[in-house]
Amino acid sequence: MAKIDLSKPILDRNERLAAENRALLDENGIFVLDLMASPGAGKTSTILATIERLRDRYGIAVIEGDIASKVDAEKVKAHGIPAVQINTGGACHLESDMIRRALDSLSLADLDLIIVENVGNLVCPTEFYLGEDAKVMILSVPEGHDKPYKYPNIFQISEAVILNKVDTMHVFDFDEAEFEGVVRSLNPTSPIFKISATKGDGVDAWTDWLAARIEARKATAAEASS
Amino acid sequence: MAKIDLSKPILDRNERLAAENRALLDENGIFVLDLMASPGAGKTSTILATIERLRDRYGIAVIEGDIASKVDAEKVKAHGIPAVQINTGGACHLESDMIRRALDSLSLADLDLIIVENVGNLVCPTEFYLGEDAKVMILSVPEGHDKPYKYPNIFQISEAVILNKVDTMHVFDFDEAEFEGVVRSLNPTSPIFKISATKGDGVDAWTDWLAARIEARKATAAEASS
Repeated sequence: MAKIDLSKPILDRNERLAAENRALLDENGIFVLDLMASPGAGKTSTILATIERLRDRYGIAVIEGDIASKVDAEKVKAHGIPAVQINTGGACHLESDMIRRALDSLSLADLDLIIVENVGNLVCPTEFYLGEDAKVMILSVPEGHDKPYKYPNIFQISEAVILNKVDTMHVFDFDEAEFEGVVRSLNPTSPIFKISATKGDGVDAWTDWLAARIEARKATAAEASS
Repeated sequence: MAKIDLSKPILDRNERLAAENRALLDENGIFVLDLMASPGAGKTSTILATIERLRDRYGIAVIEGDIASKVDAEKVKAHGIPAVQINTGGACHLESDMIRRALDSLSLADLDLIIVENVGNLVCPTEFYLGEDAKVMILSVPEGHDKPYKYPNIFQISEAVILNKVDTMHVFDFDEAEFEGVVRSLNPTSPIFKISATKGDGVDAWTDWLAARIEARKATAAEASS
């Protein structure tokens, strides 16, 4: 029996719209981070901790992706940062057309960094390029050190891996050495940042890396336009 | 522009195969539980705690769904319980044809209960009927009390909601009253079981409910064949 891969036309359309997003972001010199994690791993807390450290240096906005609700966008707006809530209405990931509509509602000329909080999921978001500069994932300690065995793809494609809630390490049976060993076997180069987003531990190392990536992007953009 | 819903033929085929699974399970008088949760919420620990309490009364097998790896099936087999590992190779949920192949490899005449551990995900597994008797979800305390706002569908369709890792409540800012209020607004009838799968707290109430469902199913089957 011949099989028809129904996912291909969807992915092709998504890639085309992602390239359009990329062109629009290039015009405005904006770095886009696509942040992926399970539900409850601490994406919003990590975004708030990141904003706190980088808001004096960069114009920042957040695009919040959720199946339903607007609680995350409201949390970000409460800190005086522009935020757009996307409700996917059931879809387990964001797609390029949703990002495009969100970009159209932001004042792009004022921005250096857009953080996209993808839908809480370790699978679907990995397959969709949105026009971002980097995909980064968060795993939280309570989820367990065996997750790289079960969800290898997201660890392979992430340009940085954040291990969040390290302040709860004593409560859970989390084997740091095994975790790092498996992550390294899947992805030899991406840095692993161990943080507590709510307590602040380790967040500076993460935001230093992110700021360096933003600066590298600015330098490339300046060279291209000179 | 007319839109073609590519998901419909996939869902239709899945429903047809689910009905075939259902017929096969009915013939053998087997109760099937489809257990859904985020990665790391404690599905496997809950399954092991359930097996410990029910193995003297019922013949039990487990079907483990993961993107990759066989660590979960190995954990179950280490307790002397038949387990089949399904690797979806990327898909974020189990489908009926995968369950059928797993059923074909089990000794159905010896079984009263099959526990299906779905892929770690709060979205995709909700859309696929596999021929099961009940879908049940686990949320774990570290994921946060706001999850029902963000993933309403899984709370709506679950016939029981398990709140796991309640022994870590003191470490996390988890608002039990708010959690129960939102779950009740989405799903007024399904019981909420607060457990610690690894420590054993509250597990008896959960397995009593499950045993009552298995008995009810047996009674219906006996009536149908008399």
